[in-house]
Amino acid sequence: MRTRAAVALEAGKPLEIMDVLLDGPKAGEVLVEIKATGLCHTDEFTRSGDDPEGIFPAILGHEGAGVVVELGEGVTSLEVGDHVIPLYTAECRECEYCLNPKTNLCQKVRATQGQGLLPDGTTRFSMLDGTPIHHYMGCSTFANHTVVPEIALAKVRKDAPFDKICYIGCGVTTGIGAVINTAKVEIGSTGIVFGLGGIGLNVIQGLRLAGADQIVGVDVNDGKAEMARHFGMTDFVNPTKVDGDIVAHLVELTGGGGDYTFDATGNVNVMRQALESAHKGWGESIIIGVAGAGQEIATRPFQLVTGRVWRGTAFGGASGRTDVPKIVDWYMQGKIEIDPMITHNLKLEEINHGFDLMHEGKSIRAVVEF
Amino acid sequence: MRTRAAVALEAGKPLEIMDVLLDGPKAGEVLVEIKATGLCHTDEFTRSGDDPEGIFPAILGHEGAGVVVELGEGVTSLEVGDHVIPLYTAECRECEYCLNPKTNLCQKVRATQGQGLLPDGTTRFSMLDGTPIHHYMGCSTFANHTVVPEIALAKVRKDAPFDKICYIGCGVTTGIGAVINTAKVEIGSTGIVFGLGGIGLNVIQGLRLAGADQIVGVDVNDGKAEMARHFGMTDFVNPTKVDGDIVAHLVELTGGGGDYTFDATGNVNVMRQALESAHKGWGESIIIGVAGAGQEIATRPFQLVTGRVWRGTAFGGASGRTDVPKIVDWYMQGKIEIDPMITHNLKLEEINHGFDLMHEGKSIRAVVEF
Repeated sequence: MRTRAAVALEAGKPLEIMDVLLDGPKAGEVLVEIKATGLCHTDEFTRSGDDPEGIFPAILGHEGAGVVVELGEGVTSLEVGDHVIPLYTAECRECEYCLNPKTNLCQKVRATQGQGLLPDGTTRFSMLDGTPIHHYMGCSTFANHTVVPEIALAKVRKDAPFDKICYIGCGVTTGIGAVINTAKVEIGSTGIVFGLGGIGLNVIQGLRLAGADQIVGVDVNDGKAEMARHFGMTDFVNPTKVDGDIVAHLVELTGGGGDYTFDATGNVNVMRQALESAHKGWGESIIIGVAGAGQEIATRPFQLVTGRVWRGTAFGGASGRTDVPKIVDWYMQGKIEIDPMITHNLKLEEINHGFDLMHEGKSIRAVVEF
Repeated sequence: MRTRAAVALEAGKPLEIMDVLLDGPKAGEVLVEIKATGLCHTDEFTRSGDDPEGIFPAILGHEGAGVVVELGEGVTSLEVGDHVIPLYTAECRECEYCLNPKTNLCQKVRATQGQGLLPDGTTRFSMLDGTPIHHYMGCSTFANHTVVPEIALAKVRKDAPFDKICYIGCGVTTGIGAVINTAKVEIGSTGIVFGLGGIGLNVIQGLRLAGADQIVGVDVNDGKAEMARHFGMTDFVNPTKVDGDIVAHLVELTGGGGDYTFDATGNVNVMRQALESAHKGWGESIIIGVAGAGQEIATRPFQLVTGRVWRGTAFGGASGRTDVPKIVDWYMQGKIEIDPMITHNLKLEEINHGFDLMHEGKSIRAVVEF
């Protein structure tokens, strides 16, 4: 079939809107009509050429929501018409990783996914001249239709609006999941969140959901504070306006440091500050942001020997087929908010403008609706 | 009173055996006759002058066992004649840290202890000419008598031999505790231990006690393997004899990496190897060793984002008054072994020879008996 897509032809170039060819689903695969997709920094990381593992040409996008159109052979857990969210972290429920409750990093389709391929080692997308187009993070939601493995689709309720729940495909789940799955924050805790963008705001509302008493937000941009307060932030710190050491300031503000601290910046220096502003004896620091290629984190081992714990999280520690439908329910029940974070609704033709808005810091989330 | 002690008069100099003056215990303090004390690398770290926080003159030693001789005012939990092990990590059972089950880092006497003083800000030890001599880690077990806060004494059974259980005051508890308190190793786990000295061997027997299936020991000295096998090591790796990358070798040997890895070397490069040889998705790495002043650990944040956890431990996460008596029981019941690790029994006059043995790698633990 033909479908409309935004294609990343080369690193560093704007996406090109064009018709592409899409083969039908093979065994274990599902054809999905994408209804809406968010624009995430990770898409931009790859588009820009900064991602050393970026492969081109490719159809980017990994934060989508849509409707099942056609089932490949042997697909039993979904039906045509089901509403789904594609998962860049699959959940096969049978690999060594899925069977270990300590991790969500299903390995079943990981190797081919990293190569921009579906599990059989080929692509479904191609140019009109037949040139294959790579998949991206197993999702490729910057296309009106895509093919995804059955184990990489979360089935969600049908009354939830696509242009909001697409954000659960990455940002919402990553932020809230970092709090509830990775950190396992207890009621009454103190949290410190570095970076108040699309992930950081969801960490903030995750902390509120988990019953944290003090929720400190840290950002160099004062303009981020208002929205963060809306989502539950109790204290705002702009490190450019702090006299002296930001870590010492945060330790004092929180009466000893955060029980849980979160890096949502991707900056390795901030990751160190996040660790060192965790409470001596028991504070845990969770790295969410993706650092630039080759960059390293560092600290004195004394920081760990005196009880701080350094962790990371991918997709908020969520097992997507199990956890994503629950988060959609929480949104529909009003337990969490998404609407204020969707700041721009665009058409596919405007997708490059969406990345401009991201660079200019004008959007929290821009969503493309098909 | 007068007592006999090995005094560190200056950084880098041998200890001097001499008579010193010891004031009686003040309120909340206890006079202890030390019967035996181990020689630990931490004592040597301070003696040598490498410890930037070292204070002189001081009576070092923090791995002792002895008998209560006199109680200061208000001491209620001990009686004259009780057998005790001094604790460099106190357990007051009432500070914010003691009341948090996630940490053992009691802060009650920490500040003065770090200054080489007892909690009232003075020393009990002095030269015969009246010059104060500093305490060390709150213990100062390189003296035939010492004064210790009540909350820094673990009461233990009277039938346990002093020259063995003194080692529970640091090395045994640190190694075993890192496994059972900090890592909380589950039955069937795979562990990797870097460094097979006095701490590493106790990590090994801790892993055996916890029911680990595979226990890998890593040391550059083949001569360490035999004793480590005695304590439960199943696989030995000498990194100087591995072709290529030690981390890749260990990941292959363990079928994906260690569920738990332990650094017992104090070398920051080894700490990184320990982290990176932990299993993707769930492996935890625990830093036990003390690094040189100013040294830093580093890794790519991707190591944490893909599920590895970096922790540290101090005194094996043990709450000393509660946990040390249990470990003494385990020794007396034969659940753990200590005897083969006590390789040299010395007199106080031979204490500098004990440090020579340590440097030459000839001792696991040298113990001074009074």
